[in-house]
Amino acid sequence: MENEHIRQILTDIEHGKISASEGYARLKLTPYEDLGYAKVDHHREVRQGAPEVIYGASKTKEQIEGIIGSLLAHCPENILITRLAPESAAYLADRFPLFYDDVSRIGIVNRTSHVSAKGTIVVATGGTSDIPVAEEAALTAEALGNKVVRLYDVGVAGLHRLLSNLEVLSSANAVIAVAGMEGALASVIGGLTDCPVIGVPTSIGYGASFQGVSALLSMLNSCASGVSVVNIDNGFGAGYLASMINHTGG
Amino acid sequence: MENEHIRQILTDIEHGKISASEGYARLKLTPYEDLGYAKVDHHREVRQGAPEVIYGASKTKEQIEGIIGSLLAHCPENILITRLAPESAAYLADRFPLFYDDVSRIGIVNRTSHVSAKGTIVVATGGTSDIPVAEEAALTAEALGNKVVRLYDVGVAGLHRLLSNLEVLSSANAVIAVAGMEGALASVIGGLTDCPVIGVPTSIGYGASFQGVSALLSMLNSCASGVSVVNIDNGFGAGYLASMINHTGG
Amino acid sequence: MENEHIRQILTDIEHGKISASEGYARLKLTPYEDLGYAKVDHHREVRQGAPEVIYGASKTKEQIEGIIGSLLAHCPENILITRLAPESAAYLADRFPLFYDDVSRIGIVNRTSHVSAKGTIVVATGGTSDIPVAEEAALTAEALGNKVVRLYDVGVAGLHRLLSNLEVLSSANAVIAVAGMEGALASVIGGLTDCPVIGVPTSIGYGASFQGVSALLSMLNSCASGVSVVNIDNGFGAGYLASMINHTGG
Amino acid sequence: MENEHIRQILTDIEHGKISASEGYARLKLTPYEDLGYAKVDHHREVRQGAPEVIYGASKTKEQIEGIIGSLLAHCPENILITRLAPESAAYLADRFPLFYDDVSRIGIVNRTSHVSAKGTIVVATGGTSDIPVAEEAALTAEALGNKVVRLYDVGVAGLHRLLSNLEVLSSANAVIAVAGMEGALASVIGGLTDCPVIGVPTSIGYGASFQGVSALLSMLNSCASGVSVVNIDNGFGAGYLASMINHTGG
Amino acid sequence: MENEHIRQILTDIEHGKISASEGYARLKLTPYEDLGYAKVDHHREVRQGAPEVIYGASKTKEQIEGIIGSLLAHCPENILITRLAPESAAYLADRFPLFYDDVSRIGIVNRTSHVSAKGTIVVATGGTSDIPVAEEAALTAEALGNKVVRLYDVGVAGLHRLLSNLEVLSSANAVIAVAGMEGALASVIGGLTDCPVIGVPTSIGYGASFQGVSALLSMLNSCASGVSVVNIDNGFGAGYLASMINHTGG
Amino acid sequence: MENEHIRQILTDIEHGKISASEGYARLKLTPYEDLGYAKVDHHREVRQGAPEVIYGASKTKEQIEGIIGSLLAHCPENILITRLAPESAAYLADRFPLFYDDVSRIGIVNRTSHVSAKGTIVVATGGTSDIPVAEEAALTAEALGNKVVRLYDVGVAGLHRLLSNLEVLSSANAVIAVAGMEGALASVIGGLTDCPVIGVPTSIGYGASFQGVSALLSMLNSCASGVSVVNIDNGFGAGYLASMINHTGG
Amino acid sequence: MENEHIRQILTDIEHGKISASEGYARLKLTPYEDLGYAKVDHHREVRQGAPEVIYGASKTKEQIEGIIGSLLAHCPENILITRLAPESAAYLADRFPLFYDDVSRIGIVNRTSHVSAKGTIVVATGGTSDIPVAEEAALTAEALGNKVVRLYDVGVAGLHRLLSNLEVLSSANAVIAVAGMEGALASVIGGLTDCPVIGVPTSIGYGASFQGVSALLSMLNSCASGVSVVNIDNGFGAGYLASMINHTGG
Amino acid sequence: MENEHIRQILTDIEHGKISASEGYARLKLTPYEDLGYAKVDHHREVRQGAPEVIYGASKTKEQIEGIIGSLLAHCPENILITRLAPESAAYLADRFPLFYDDVSRIGIVNRTSHVSAKGTIVVATGGTSDIPVAEEAALTAEALGNKVVRLYDVGVAGLHRLLSNLEVLSSANAVIAVAGMEGALASVIGGLTDCPVIGVPTSIGYGASFQGVSALLSMLNSCASGVSVVNIDNGFGAGYLASMINHTGG
Repeated sequence: MENEHIRQILTDIEHGKISASEGYARLKLTPYEDLGYAKVDHHREVRQGAPEVIYGASKTKEQIEGIIGSLLAHCPENILITRLAPESAAYLADRFPLFYDDVSRIGIVNRTSHVSAKGTIVVATGGTSDIPVAEEAALTAEALGNKVVRLYDVGVAGLHRLLSNLEVLSSANAVIAVAGMEGALASVIGGLTDCPVIGVPTSIGYGASFQGVSALLSMLNSCASGVSVVNIDNGFGAGYLASMINHTGG
Repeated sequence: MENEHIRQILTDIEHGKISASEGYARLKLTPYEDLGYAKVDHHREVRQGAPEVIYGASKTKEQIEGIIGSLLAHCPENILITRLAPESAAYLADRFPLFYDDVSRIGIVNRTSHVSAKGTIVVATGGTSDIPVAEEAALTAEALGNKVVRLYDVGVAGLHRLLSNLEVLSSANAVIAVAGMEGALASVIGGLTDCPVIGVPTSIGYGASFQGVSALLSMLNSCASGVSVVNIDNGFGAGYLASMINHTGG
Repeated sequence: MENEHIRQILTDIEHGKISASEGYARLKLTPYEDLGYAKVDHHREVRQGAPEVIYGASKTKEQIEGIIGSLLAHCPENILITRLAPESAAYLADRFPLFYDDVSRIGIVNRTSHVSAKGTIVVATGGTSDIPVAEEAALTAEALGNKVVRLYDVGVAGLHRLLSNLEVLSSANAVIAVAGMEGALASVIGGLTDCPVIGVPTSIGYGASFQGVSALLSMLNSCASGVSVVNIDNGFGAGYLASMINHTGG
Repeated sequence: MENEHIRQILTDIEHGKISASEGYARLKLTPYEDLGYAKVDHHREVRQGAPEVIYGASKTKEQIEGIIGSLLAHCPENILITRLAPESAAYLADRFPLFYDDVSRIGIVNRTSHVSAKGTIVVATGGTSDIPVAEEAALTAEALGNKVVRLYDVGVAGLHRLLSNLEVLSSANAVIAVAGMEGALASVIGGLTDCPVIGVPTSIGYGASFQGVSALLSMLNSCASGVSVVNIDNGFGAGYLASMINHTGG
Repeated sequence: MENEHIRQILTDIEHGKISASEGYARLKLTPYEDLGYAKVDHHREVRQGAPEVIYGASKTKEQIEGIIGSLLAHCPENILITRLAPESAAYLADRFPLFYDDVSRIGIVNRTSHVSAKGTIVVATGGTSDIPVAEEAALTAEALGNKVVRLYDVGVAGLHRLLSNLEVLSSANAVIAVAGMEGALASVIGGLTDCPVIGVPTSIGYGASFQGVSALLSMLNSCASGVSVVNIDNGFGAGYLASMINHTGG
Repeated sequence: MENEHIRQILTDIEHGKISASEGYARLKLTPYEDLGYAKVDHHREVRQGAPEVIYGASKTKEQIEGIIGSLLAHCPENILITRLAPESAAYLADRFPLFYDDVSRIGIVNRTSHVSAKGTIVVATGGTSDIPVAEEAALTAEALGNKVVRLYDVGVAGLHRLLSNLEVLSSANAVIAVAGMEGALASVIGGLTDCPVIGVPTSIGYGASFQGVSALLSMLNSCASGVSVVNIDNGFGAGYLASMINHTGG
Repeated sequence: MENEHIRQILTDIEHGKISASEGYARLKLTPYEDLGYAKVDHHREVRQGAPEVIYGASKTKEQIEGIIGSLLAHCPENILITRLAPESAAYLADRFPLFYDDVSRIGIVNRTSHVSAKGTIVVATGGTSDIPVAEEAALTAEALGNKVVRLYDVGVAGLHRLLSNLEVLSSANAVIAVAGMEGALASVIGGLTDCPVIGVPTSIGYGASFQGVSALLSMLNSCASGVSVVNIDNGFGAGYLASMINHTGG
Repeated sequence: MENEHIRQILTDIEHGKISASEGYARLKLTPYEDLGYAKVDHHREVRQGAPEVIYGASKTKEQIEGIIGSLLAHCPENILITRLAPESAAYLADRFPLFYDDVSRIGIVNRTSHVSAKGTIVVATGGTSDIPVAEEAALTAEALGNKVVRLYDVGVAGLHRLLSNLEVLSSANAVIAVAGMEGALASVIGGLTDCPVIGVPTSIGYGASFQGVSALLSMLNSCASGVSVVNIDNGFGAGYLASMINHTGG
């Protein structure tokens, strides 16, 4: 998968530095660390341009500690842990310099602040209840080197709140539209801007919101071009993707 | 069910005009005509304020003819037939004075024009493809004595088309919002007006529109107050309900 | 969105009272208050004829307190908070004159009683279990200036309970039919009255009731004309819409 | 599976009439005929009290012909073929004395008329469009020896049509309620009678009727006791079950 | 709705015993008691052959107490309360002679034992986990005057357990098949008996059992004739229906 | 919505060039052309950076002709018509210089070729059957000024086909992953690249593919970061979004 | 992915037979042939033990012809084409020695008969209508070198048909259970045998069979151990898997 | 069902050792023990080659104790209890020699270790969170006499982790692929091996993972041949089936 790495091994064989058998073994030696319960991917930063992120939802605090330990050896900053329970956060805070936001439940080890992309990412929400997901997106994008502008509670039932912020929207390289219930925010923003809009349906609502399915379908059917969608409540994924877009052509 | 009717029968018994047995029979005699395949409800205009409507979708042209014949004896004007196939329309047009609109597939026998309510009903669509359903609503409302204003192709991906028609919206007693795909139109209009908004999801779209389910869910989850929903593609129901609202307090 | 407001600004420019730049800024200045976590819409009463309502389900008690504070500055009476948890109600009751109904979990700050519409709204339920949703509808409609008649536990499995209340039904300007399980109440009432019927499916039931989906589908498919539907358990929305209808032509 | 049959075989062995091996073989010899594409069950009338029925929907006319031929050797009358296409019916009518009803698409070979149960079965429909399914039920029940009363187009949106037929309902041993759209008919009838009500949802409707799912859910959630449900459009199953009930205690 | 009752009133008017006005009032006076939160149906035993049953799931213990009190005045025995929470049962046991089964959570006030039907009802389950629902069915049927045979843990993955009980099955007037997971029990029993089989899907299972939906669909699609289905976990409904069938022709 | 346009109008009032009334009218005059059945948005290129696109699926050929005519007056090149039926294409080809691809059913009026973005867009498919959707994406992206590389039939069941094209993938600014059935292609590509991956589920498959729902869900749940999703079969939307991304920072 | 192939390349470099660059190129050279619309996998027989199979459903006859041509160069026998339309079959039969079964719509180029596995595969169906899917499974398994026994129309509603074939079942190395409607066949067979049972739900049925979903869920929830499931109507997949199992340990 | 057993009984009758009546009784005497709440199947090891397994999820600890007691009389080793709650495990550990794994919640009474099959079963997971289900599979397979290799956290978003373990995969007789979210692991492994792959979707994930439905659909639609699927989270079923396959031809 890594052409330079492979080419080097082959050249080493050609030059007699290593034998064919050794080359074969090295080819198979992949840059991950096997903790038994997890195979930590140290090669990911090279391959994907960002360090591995720890999905904290179904891991024990000891498992998370182990993975952080493994990652720290290779990437010293901004290790993200999403969906981190407060108790696990308390445990980890005793062991690592941990930033923890209890609204979005995101944790960042060795958080540093640096902006590596020129453009701006706007994170908008339909209502107050969508803020936890929006903050997951915003904090992720900031940790990945982006300038983020927050635009909360601008749902379509009161359009003037959105329309009075058109200049903010038009200045963005990417907009993250976070909304539950009918999820129309993504479409309306999509019609007002000329940059990619990433829809994040949230599980906010009741009855026929079906834990975000209604908002998800609404965003998938957006009649505005330039709108794509991530999983329900996936603020992290939206922040990560927005960062990718914001770094394009950089 | 009809208090006056019952009271009259009872009074007739009391006064010896009819016997108890005859009264009992009359009480059971309900004002419908039994055609075998249909029980035509001649009492409906009294009970519901509008004549029975013929749902043409799964009836033969001969069955429709029979029902029209039965209805004509009691209500001479504006007999609505919805979802009327062109071939059935041609057959009926040879037998009755039939207005037929081949876009909405609505037929009206002995169509007359009279406006019995003071207010206006606005019928709006998200796109061009929603027009057949919208016309079913508009023609129904007109047949029931309402003034109707059409506002087509004002979907939320191009908000200025809607915003430039705010005066039309604000003048309405009821708005019918007809939209497929993400169905956000109902919510956006709901936030802009202070009259009831009737959402009509349409089966327009593809993929995750699921033949109108996405629009239906979107409208049910509307964060704007005053929005209610009828069945997918049910233009007739929306027009009928809007007419009821428009006649309230009249 | 507000024609008079815009026209005044333009006239002020024309007359030299303000510069074009200042006019431009004012045009963008919309009448909401930004609390950070919420953008409180003080303009809504003008635009929609009713004050903003606070959806309490996913807001902290402090957030609700802040929004009430902002609203009180502009509308002194009948501020509705729906889905208000008992603990939050206790907190707010220490700070505001709060009416709280623990069946429907609705709270009203500075509740006053005045009837502004002539007609009557009937709120009917299929069973005893539907009463919390029905009370949300009834209290909302009352707060918005309507006379409300309650007709509880009149489900279709014992039709005589409903049929013995036909006079109540026929006197209404709007009927709210609240039912779970098979949701047939809306259709049956729809066939008995000539006013709009607003179906509110409830999440009451088990198994194939699917938390209200069965009742929702039943109501959407109503073969009675004049029936529309709001979201599952959305008593507030039904009460609000019924009030709109009851005020039509007023 | 057939105790007498088994006991006879065992007695024959005991008495030396047949050897154990032969008995073993006979025990395994089950009374069906293997046509290759079908295993025709000649034993069913003994086991279930009614001859095998041919589900014609996905069989070729030659396959149906073969099965009829096999069945005729054992049961000479009233062989039912459901969902029989008109072309197949024409083909079979050249070869067997076939009754064919093109509304319900049911065919009966050697149809005879005899009533073997004392009670009455009522078949009711919500609308005209439900008649094909209702006729499948009615013709099935008649072929199985029942007296059937048809009560068509008595949907709940016009309750008086149903209420004026209460005596018919109350005389039944079983009622088959056939309805599409919101399917409330089963519940309403269930509340009015004291005999079993078999709900047959039909695929009649559009939009959120979801080809009968809405009616199916409605009937499953019936708040009236004594209501059970068969598959969507399964008129045959309802007629068969009603016949079983009507023959109970006979 | 009650012909004799109506006829008597009319005769009284005819004979001058009561005036037409009084007759009209009586016609409307339906035999239910209005407790505010419930309309207790004292007429149901006449109309449906069994007393009203209290669905305890979403009622307070005080509401249940009130309804029992109202019912006791008219029917002194075997008042069923389904889905009765243990705490409510304890409360009621202090006030009424209450039988309570904590497996099925059914309560019976003034339980008496008498068998009024000749036949037998078999209640079968696929597994041990289905027993609570099966007991709800069995206790209901017993309270309604039926002899019940229990046949538990005879699921289709071990057919010999079922096949060795064929005589029990063949002696029944009705079989209640209670099963979760794949729900095949109803079909297999349906093929082995000649009496009605009532399928009760249960919410037992995990993953793709979808809380009983898989079993429900399986039973609805049964290829065996004579099978009908009630709601998931609706043991009461099945027991009630089986009792109706068992009393047919009695 | 257009700040410069508004500011100009205000300045004109300020300078007395136009009156306040005239300014008010102009403010409301939005740059769309009303064809009755459609409101063609001539302002979209300014607002969104790309001309309006015609969704041909549910429009008559005459409607499409009318919209093209209206658009040509403002944007002379590369007018896209998606889902254009062959018969409509033939009709339009007689009237406009039309490029038509009968695999993807895309039409382009006055197609010109120019590349305005530096990077490359890769369009990959899982199988041969996904090519029509992929071509819709590829032709759209090319019409919007992008260089496109096609990589077809590289599904995950034969990983070597994908792995041997890693260099192509790693050179892209955006990858469009088009796949039906299990839709794993998006995740696998997402793990191999560091640019945004746009998943396009297709309706290819049968049975539990549910017309693309399975692939849609698979892509939404992608465990690879940087993946977002558009509607099933929405090749156009993916191509448009990829173009937006490819032009970011340009 | 192919260790020997890689090792050989590395050894060739070590021995100076090829340069590192050439080795690198060869490593990337994967054994598929790129036809543009398809990448034919000639390496699959080595990797998976069976030649590539052509899914004919959405390919043109010319595309299929091209792929056959490419495959024939490497594997001369038993090239399977599934879901082959009759017209395409006729076209191909003019060009290749094609066996075509119009029931299952399977085509086999250069069909040869040889049995390479010792055990037997039983293919059972619930009804006659399931035979097309069963034949797809049976013909696939035969083409892959297996002895197949067909056991058709042995559905659970007539258990004796299945029970009289227990010896056939017990002799199998794998059983393929093909059934629509309630799909109980897989569970019942699973309880009767000690070999793997592969469930193939079919889309046979109507109403709540939901095109095979009911059978699919039933099989997934099988309470019998040893049952697994493939996609609805996927006879080929079941035949292929059964062949793998039958060749295990061979 | 057991030919030898039946044949012996018949021979005994033939030889006069037992009477026909006694033979009849014995034929019906099936080898299960009836505990009332459960019918323990002692005959299963003969019939299915493995002892009965106790599904612990909805049984009381006393019920489990009773079933173990009954089973121990016939099969002294490796009695599996799945989904065993920790409290029940503690209770049972006081009474039996119990192995208990609190990750997979599997319990084994009298666990012994012996390998009866030659091949290897590989259990792979997409992530760390899938390990509990994987361990249920692995421990089951080990208890049934198989050698198991665990390969955890090799999800498709980091393909190199999987590709570096190709030799492990290629050595297996069966692979169990355990994955939640998008479930692509089964397809990718299916393309890399030539042995049966058993997909186990897990309920790991959030939002549109729908508790494992997304992974389930993904696996059912696998474009790789040789993949079949068991229920969501059904590690036991996969382990049992893999053992069956691994013992084939043994």
